[in-house]
Amino acid sequence: MDYEVAVARELDGLRIPAKGEYSEVARQQRLGFLREKSGLALEGVGSCSYTPEALKNNIESLVGTVEVPLAVVGPVRVKGVHVDDTVYVPCATTEGALVASLNRGATALFRAGGVTAWAVSQRVLRAPYFEFFDLSAAQRFCQWVGDNEAEVRNRVLRASDHAELLSLEPVVIGRCVHLTFEYRSGDASGQNMVTACTWSACNWIREALALSGDMPLADFAIEAGLSGDKRVTGQTFTRGRGTRVTAECVLPADVVRDVLKVEPSALVHYFHQLSASESAAGSVGCCLNIANPIAAVFVATGQDIACVHESSAGVFYLELQQDGNIYASITLPCLVVGTVGGGTGVPQQRECLQLMGCAGSGKAMRFAECIAACCMGLELSTMSAVASDQFAQAHERMGRNRPA
Amino acid sequence: MDYEVAVARELDGLRIPAKGEYSEVARQQRLGFLREKSGLALEGVGSCSYTPEALKNNIESLVGTVEVPLAVVGPVRVKGVHVDDTVYVPCATTEGALVASLNRGATALFRAGGVTAWAVSQRVLRAPYFEFFDLSAAQRFCQWVGDNEAEVRNRVLRASDHAELLSLEPVVIGRCVHLTFEYRSGDASGQNMVTACTWSACNWIREALALSGDMPLADFAIEAGLSGDKRVTGQTFTRGRGTRVTAECVLPADVVRDVLKVEPSALVHYFHQLSASESAAGSVGCCLNIANPIAAVFVATGQDIACVHESSAGVFYLELQQDGNIYASITLPCLVVGTVGGGTGVPQQRECLQLMGCAGSGKAMRFAECIAACCMGLELSTMSAVASDQFAQAHERMGRNRPA
Amino acid sequence: MDYEVAVARELDGLRIPAKGEYSEVARQQRLGFLREKSGLALEGVGSCSYTPEALKNNIESLVGTVEVPLAVVGPVRVKGVHVDDTVYVPCATTEGALVASLNRGATALFRAGGVTAWAVSQRVLRAPYFEFFDLSAAQRFCQWVGDNEAEVRNRVLRASDHAELLSLEPVVIGRCVHLTFEYRSGDASGQNMVTACTWSACNWIREALALSGDMPLADFAIEAGLSGDKRVTGQTFTRGRGTRVTAECVLPADVVRDVLKVEPSALVHYFHQLSASESAAGSVGCCLNIANPIAAVFVATGQDIACVHESSAGVFYLELQQDGNIYASITLPCLVVGTVGGGTGVPQQRECLQLMGCAGSGKAMRFAECIAACCMGLELSTMSAVASDQFAQAHERMGRNRPA
Amino acid sequence: MDYEVAVARELDGLRIPAKGEYSEVARQQRLGFLREKSGLALEGVGSCSYTPEALKNNIESLVGTVEVPLAVVGPVRVKGVHVDDTVYVPCATTEGALVASLNRGATALFRAGGVTAWAVSQRVLRAPYFEFFDLSAAQRFCQWVGDNEAEVRNRVLRASDHAELLSLEPVVIGRCVHLTFEYRSGDASGQNMVTACTWSACNWIREALALSGDMPLADFAIEAGLSGDKRVTGQTFTRGRGTRVTAECVLPADVVRDVLKVEPSALVHYFHQLSASESAAGSVGCCLNIANPIAAVFVATGQDIACVHESSAGVFYLELQQDGNIYASITLPCLVVGTVGGGTGVPQQRECLQLMGCAGSGKAMRFAECIAACCMGLELSTMSAVASDQFAQAHERMGRNRPA
Repeated sequence: MDYEVAVARELDGLRIPAKGEYSEVARQQRLGFLREKSGLALEGVGSCSYTPEALKNNIESLVGTVEVPLAVVGPVRVKGVHVDDTVYVPCATTEGALVASLNRGATALFRAGGVTAWAVSQRVLRAPYFEFFDLSAAQRFCQWVGDNEAEVRNRVLRASDHAELLSLEPVVIGRCVHLTFEYRSGDASGQNMVTACTWSACNWIREALALSGDMPLADFAIEAGLSGDKRVTGQTFTRGRGTRVTAECVLPADVVRDVLKVEPSALVHYFHQLSASESAAGSVGCCLNIANPIAAVFVATGQDIACVHESSAGVFYLELQQDGNIYASITLPCLVVGTVGGGTGVPQQRECLQLMGCAGSGKAMRFAECIAACCMGLELSTMSAVASDQFAQAHERMGRNRPA
Repeated sequence: MDYEVAVARELDGLRIPAKGEYSEVARQQRLGFLREKSGLALEGVGSCSYTPEALKNNIESLVGTVEVPLAVVGPVRVKGVHVDDTVYVPCATTEGALVASLNRGATALFRAGGVTAWAVSQRVLRAPYFEFFDLSAAQRFCQWVGDNEAEVRNRVLRASDHAELLSLEPVVIGRCVHLTFEYRSGDASGQNMVTACTWSACNWIREALALSGDMPLADFAIEAGLSGDKRVTGQTFTRGRGTRVTAECVLPADVVRDVLKVEPSALVHYFHQLSASESAAGSVGCCLNIANPIAAVFVATGQDIACVHESSAGVFYLELQQDGNIYASITLPCLVVGTVGGGTGVPQQRECLQLMGCAGSGKAMRFAECIAACCMGLELSTMSAVASDQFAQAHERMGRNRPA
Repeated sequence: MDYEVAVARELDGLRIPAKGEYSEVARQQRLGFLREKSGLALEGVGSCSYTPEALKNNIESLVGTVEVPLAVVGPVRVKGVHVDDTVYVPCATTEGALVASLNRGATALFRAGGVTAWAVSQRVLRAPYFEFFDLSAAQRFCQWVGDNEAEVRNRVLRASDHAELLSLEPVVIGRCVHLTFEYRSGDASGQNMVTACTWSACNWIREALALSGDMPLADFAIEAGLSGDKRVTGQTFTRGRGTRVTAECVLPADVVRDVLKVEPSALVHYFHQLSASESAAGSVGCCLNIANPIAAVFVATGQDIACVHESSAGVFYLELQQDGNIYASITLPCLVVGTVGGGTGVPQQRECLQLMGCAGSGKAMRFAECIAACCMGLELSTMSAVASDQFAQAHERMGRNRPA
Repeated sequence: MDYEVAVARELDGLRIPAKGEYSEVARQQRLGFLREKSGLALEGVGSCSYTPEALKNNIESLVGTVEVPLAVVGPVRVKGVHVDDTVYVPCATTEGALVASLNRGATALFRAGGVTAWAVSQRVLRAPYFEFFDLSAAQRFCQWVGDNEAEVRNRVLRASDHAELLSLEPVVIGRCVHLTFEYRSGDASGQNMVTACTWSACNWIREALALSGDMPLADFAIEAGLSGDKRVTGQTFTRGRGTRVTAECVLPADVVRDVLKVEPSALVHYFHQLSASESAAGSVGCCLNIANPIAAVFVATGQDIACVHESSAGVFYLELQQDGNIYASITLPCLVVGTVGGGTGVPQQRECLQLMGCAGSGKAMRFAECIAACCMGLELSTMSAVASDQFAQAHERMGRNRPA
């Protein structure tokens, strides 16, 4: 026990101060502590243009900010179902060549008449599990859920004005029943919203089970492996998570040659080799580098950056038409984005959303369509660079400070 | 043609000015253009504490910066192979509750005596493909590569002082040979470095093939599907990409109860249910939410944020020991990180690396071990919250501005 | 052309005779041809206890049969939702040790009081694609499908008395709409049945599209990648294909020790290591060797043996209970089986189904539950052998003719 | 206890007699028992042309055989690295239309001049795990393995004349080290062989660890999740298991039209849609139905039928050449086959191997190349049927006894 006391005491001396406080004073206390511990001035990250109190729901123990370089890609012409506009897309990155390549792709797409996009659907899962003492009780519970779905929906309704329960499906794994609540979460990415709604419904279910006595619960948790939150899974990729968006463009042969500097047939041939080798690599999806614009836009616009993980799997497609032009499509089945809530209200991130015309309610589908357009542009630009053997040279030119 | 001329003219009027220029004047021109187009003041993102010229290799067409809120998690005690220290870890995020949960995990680990970590290995692939006119030539080429490996290695050596070629393996898909160059890239994440080295080697190979006349090339590209760059693939996840790091900790039962507020047996039981349901979901790896700290640290420290995609798949493991304590391990097979090159030299990002004692040469393995420790802490904290049914409440409390 | 004529002539001389004929005479002609070409007597495979005419729907160009050694495993006690019986399970195999291990597992399960099983659901997909000339037409088609679902269902109804259309869902990939028809196929495995139904519905859809003129079809096919037939896919594994069945058993500690020759804690510990390493291997599902009984029963009972491919992915689960006993469950989400149609009517295969009490209508769910019980038994037996370090010895003993 | 005694007694009465005996008498006893229990005559499966004693290493508790209908597909022209021949391929199946489609594919390939095939490599893994008490010991063990690899190889050599150890690689998951032994197993599929070799090596390792005292073992097992035996995993699919074989063919346009009844451009277009939708389905590999010939040949030739599971994932590829002809390739990375050992010595199965010229030593690579040719033929035939909208009709015609 002496050891534990000593450790606890040591820990006290190492703790960053002002836990739980949201003020400039608290922030300066933390900064001072870290400066002393590290001997660093921390001048850059120590400066902060935000009011600590305003970030109460975005971060705990604020110390400052890190400035990520920002460029704006565009014009991006998007003729979507939820947008028909010329858009400028803010991208935050520190990777040389990315913005240049995004711009090249956007130019090709603009000259091709723009990208047609469609945010097809939106859904977020939360999948609590109910463990029973045997399979027979699990079976009765599945029946019970079917019989009581109306009341479950009722509880969800009471918990949120924005979440819409699309379906409720039990998945049985032995005596555990994972109950997948599938929601539409409107313009929020929705992870927190659907947690609250599901929890409310589950509380009612648990009360009802306790009353019935027929199916005693052995264990319960609001979340296990079937929600797909922050994970790349076969289920998420095939069923969708967040916004499913698809986009297409027909690129005239001369645009491909002039802007993308590649023969159309060479570009499509490369895509076919890429596709076969992605399959051989066991790739989830078939894209070359859509994680790049997704990450850059997510950072700029206050998205949950961790969702770059599951959002960056998609299906790209190229076809050489008989007229010599190229048909391109891209499908992103799990683009987890929102235009309200989370980091979208942080001032600079909000500016970025505003610049895209994507801030606030009613904008999430437009936002998804714009991102799909950027992804298509980058795929085309990068594939063209690779297919025409300019990729290595371009990186040589634009990413010079690497220690090669 | 008239239509195309009109489109080209329209595009000219919509282009963001000062392409290819790296100066404050150019930046202001772009800002001015965007302000006019959007009618927005762009005061937040328009301010920028960096010198545009200094970001030449990190971004094109700089417009400003976006400030991402920063907290520092710690103390994190890491007893790794490449670090034995108490570390403070900067995390950039806009997601409420994340930093609090990371700190709770770090506290538990500290009180348990710290995390033992081992960055086992590091590797980056680049896999150009060589397409021949038939399988027979592909077969001869595979033989040829075996016979000429020494010279290929020689070309790689000339192209970089930092890249080390670990292996060279042909993968045959019909008449295409994908030649996987596997490198150790030192302290850089290495994508650009290995592109340069591979390109140099491939140029020599192509010259040699042209001279021999025996195996005429039908097509070539520096990169197809087998490199795994910016993609989650079965190959990358099982073979590794970037740094492979594993970490462990034994958590005394009372630490689990006091800090994580859960019974050890309940936590481990939950993990087992999670594990089964991750398997049922077809998850790549078995973790709950390591994408969170990976994204937060990547943004803070100038990593390639798009690599959150492939880096966030890992294997978490919990075991209830006979003495009632918990053994925990985490294995991250594809953590793509660097401490030199890319965004690691941007001033504020460099401050963050310095705060962790991870800036510059010789620090990448230490950096990876620290990240693994943070991931373990968050997994423990989140799983404990879920297993003890506090997760929904905690989010209710800390993520209040969502539109629920 | 001369070359082609020569090849065609050569081909004529090499063709196996009596194409398209179903008779003993035809069979003997083929046999004679092969004997002459090969110089082999083909006495074994040349003998055949079936009437060629009776195999008209099972094979073309019948030459004979191959006898696969058959054992019967049991007694297997299954207390399922669709079976409460002691069953003997015919297994066809040439792999030494398999039947012995299956029997050991069955004994353990019998002594534990039997296996509780539940065939939860059954579904087969067929997913034709409709390609349009642009995304906008694809979007209109999705709307049209929603508006005309009743008539589509009507066409399905007319095509089969057994297939039941559970859902109809469009999946959009660019301008292609893959229309997933999800059926319950009763006691048939159903691949052919749902092909016929879907084709009938699609013919009507195509006529309707031709009449409307509004959404001209660019291309159509009855099947592309989304049906999952004969393929392991993330979609199939998570959504299910064929019968989804789950089973459980509580094994008393002394049964584990006496029959499986392993300490319960050692067995469960091994399972946890297996589970973590399956995850690290990127395994689809988490089982050790269920492909073995699935293959052996499929061959014995006239199932489509190729479906061993997608059927053999499942989720096994073990838990050490506080009372020292072991809880085991197994979940097979895509067990493609039938008790009518296909090879189930071939005389000897039918005998095998009869022996299990699984021949004919109304038996498919019972059949699935029995297979799940066998899978659980083998998993337990093999894992026990491995966990107690007897696996290598057992194989040494029972698989002696290998060239080691 | 009374209950357990009663269960044990009940079990005794239900046991199939003559356990462990290999004789006709024993077989008849079992048959008699099953006839009595079931009331069935079991005339078909009860007859058996094999001598029970001769099947000692292939099956326990033999009861009889099940006859699977056999056809022979061919001529199949294979110009492989290990075969340059016209081959007749025995296929055992009960699925109508399969043999007809295989023959159509073989005809197309013959008229195209045959299939070029290359069995590139062969490897089988066995991956025992060594669990230590902490990560530090695991690290020392990895070092120790590197230092003692020569002696480990020595132990493998002593255990088998046929297995060749290709590589030895530790995979660290926390404090567990999974040691992947990668072998070439010659003409045997090799699962048992490599178990014996690995076990022998591990016994030596364990003795050495016990002597050193420095790295006490907490647990050991000969097999956990990293071997890929009987499982579809990302590791197996990308690294290979069994034989990796690739094959190609150029199909003249008129052969495609005459034999496959489809326009070349329509066939290739279909393949591209298939490829995109396989990717969207999260498919392991990109083939339509290679599990069919693999299963049919495996049953006919005494392969381990359970290996249909992992063997049936591959990468098919089609390309429309500028001359209007079609280039086709297929790559099977994990075809688990053998021509000695296991069921390959059972008389009728051996006849089938002999008919292919694939019986005995030195034939496994030839065998793999022949199978790849059949897979290519069926893919072409089925895809052509689907692409030209004849698939549903063909099944209507040839699979008539289904209960549609």
